Amino acid sequence: MTMGEILVEIMAAERGQSFRKPGLLVGPFPSGAPAIFIDQVARLGHDAAIIGCVGDDDFGWLNIERLRRDGVDTSAIAVLEAAVTGSAFVTYDKTGERHFIFNITNSASARLSPEYVGTPLLEDCTHFHVMGSSLFSPGLREAMARAIQIVKGQGGRVSFDPNIRRELLGIPEMREALTSILKQTDVFLPSGDELTLLVEARTEGEAVEELLGLGIREIVIKQGSRGCAYYDARRRLSVPALTVAEVDPTGAGDCFAATYVTCRHRGMAVEPSLRYACASGARAVMSTGPMEGTAGLADLDALLARGEPTTEAGHD
Amino acid sequence: MTMGEILVEIMAAERGQSFRKPGLLVGPFPSGAPAIFIDQVARLGHDAAIIGCVGDDDFGWLNIERLRRDGVDTSAIAVLEAAVTGSAFVTYDKTGERHFIFNITNSASARLSPEYVGTPLLEDCTHFHVMGSSLFSPGLREAMARAIQIVKGQGGRVSFDPNIRRELLGIPEMREALTSILKQTDVFLPSGDELTLLVEARTEGEAVEELLGLGIREIVIKQGSRGCAYYDARRRLSVPALTVAEVDPTGAGDCFAATYVTCRHRGMAVEPSLRYACASGARAVMSTGPMEGTAGLADLDALLARGEPTTEAGHD
Repeated sequence: MTMGEILVEIMAAERGQSFRKPGLLVGPFPSGAPAIFIDQVARLGHDAAIIGCVGDDDFGWLNIERLRRDGVDTSAIAVLEAAVTGSAFVTYDKTGERHFIFNITNSASARLSPEYVGTPLLEDCTHFHVMGSSLFSPGLREAMARAIQIVKGQGGRVSFDPNIRRELLGIPEMREALTSILKQTDVFLPSGDELTLLVEARTEGEAVEELLGLGIREIVIKQGSRGCAYYDARRRLSVPALTVAEVDPTGAGDCFAATYVTCRHRGMAVEPSLRYACASGARAVMSTGPMEGTAGLADLDALLARGEPTTEAGHD
Repeated sequence: MTMGEILVEIMAAERGQSFRKPGLLVGPFPSGAPAIFIDQVARLGHDAAIIGCVGDDDFGWLNIERLRRDGVDTSAIAVLEAAVTGSAFVTYDKTGERHFIFNITNSASARLSPEYVGTPLLEDCTHFHVMGSSLFSPGLREAMARAIQIVKGQGGRVSFDPNIRRELLGIPEMREALTSILKQTDVFLPSGDELTLLVEARTEGEAVEELLGLGIREIVIKQGSRGCAYYDARRRLSVPALTVAEVDPTGAGDCFAATYVTCRHRGMAVEPSLRYACASGARAVMSTGPMEGTAGLADLDALLARGEPTTEAGHD
């Protein structure tokens, strides 16, 4: 299970397109980091559910219909009459950098509060995933703390993807919430320099040591087109990314995390889980739209069997 | 001057396109009924200003830049950091009916409150236009009442376009606000059946009598592709619409009202003012995008001189 923002994304059709003048757009696409994550879990055939809020509008129903179609239990998504489903407009500049206009903090997603954590679904939850991007309001932070408490209390595990813009760390409550979640995390999945975001250490080695010292069992550093690095108390692995034509990177990290967590939860060993995660990230960047690149195991197997450079995972 | 919502509009590219699945869209276009109105006033070369709120985002700046370019004084538009510029997604069904998804009541536009009426611009205002669509919150209704009081207090005139969805009249405060504005209105510009929306009377003749009895001096009924009807205490006129290829009707009523009010404010007689208003409405429907069809006097003269059917205004 996961909890958080459920959005639509509208994309500029051209690179370098400005939102200060009319142009061609594509959308609405179902989106929101936790929604993408949970859709990918369901696509792997695993039980999956999300707690979240949408407005009673086409954008909300677009998400519910997509998630439901892909096998997600949507019974804990509240459809709010007096709120509008959140949205993100994204345009890519010439260098491939993304530029967003968000309507999230005043959207239905921001209405999420501890009362929504009362869902009976959580009582059966054995794994809960936290997206740092979802912690943008006091109500959400409190709801997340409650959900983690419930799942940990019944012996479940927690994975955590900081997935956060650095400027948000300036908010003291935000850093506090993230640090508190980190201490209850079993599987930590930072992207690149997020590894050192919440620790004292400044080098990769020291950060890993500090994080493992907190009780984290597995650290998977998502490195985009460079693949990923893995650490636990005993070893380090690195797995290269698959070489694919990148169309749209949005959602790749969420798919990567979902596939890694799902494979591990099913008892798969670390190394094949990392390979599937890389394949899932690769599959995601091949499609336009944040949730359009979620994929089933057969798709990922096909991608992995495609005759990719058969570099062995590096052990050091 | 006017006051109210400043939005962007995003349009579905195809007729019958659903917002429940991804598709091609066009936008963002500057929009919001009061914003379209005031842009058209400025396009006619007249002094114009709007009181409103936008977010500090591309959608807000898109509007400010467009309004400024067209000659609107934008100094009373507040750019709010903690809010998002309002938006409207619109799709046309096969019959040409419009279907909207609005994010207005939780947008920057909803933050408008009496404090924003303190602008010194209002002290010089000789004509104030009210859009009924702007009265969606208590703060806005109070702000509007204050602005009207100021302008009327210094001898200015008020025009009023109900421009409201019928279901909103169910809110008692809304009907009360509209009725109160009606009593202070000099020029009333309802669309079609809005004529009887706020009066006891059910027929056109009786409604006109009731409205003139309230102190309204000029009633202009916008009839879309059928043109318009005009009433004052002495006479009735009707002016046919210009025959043009309709591309997008959004904004036509706002342009019509702006041009009528501006022409009259400059001392033009009623009948030519109605003709210019019809031309302005016709010009508006010829362009995709709600504010893309605003036009200068030369454009309207060209359209009127195009060899249209030279039907005389009907007097009866």
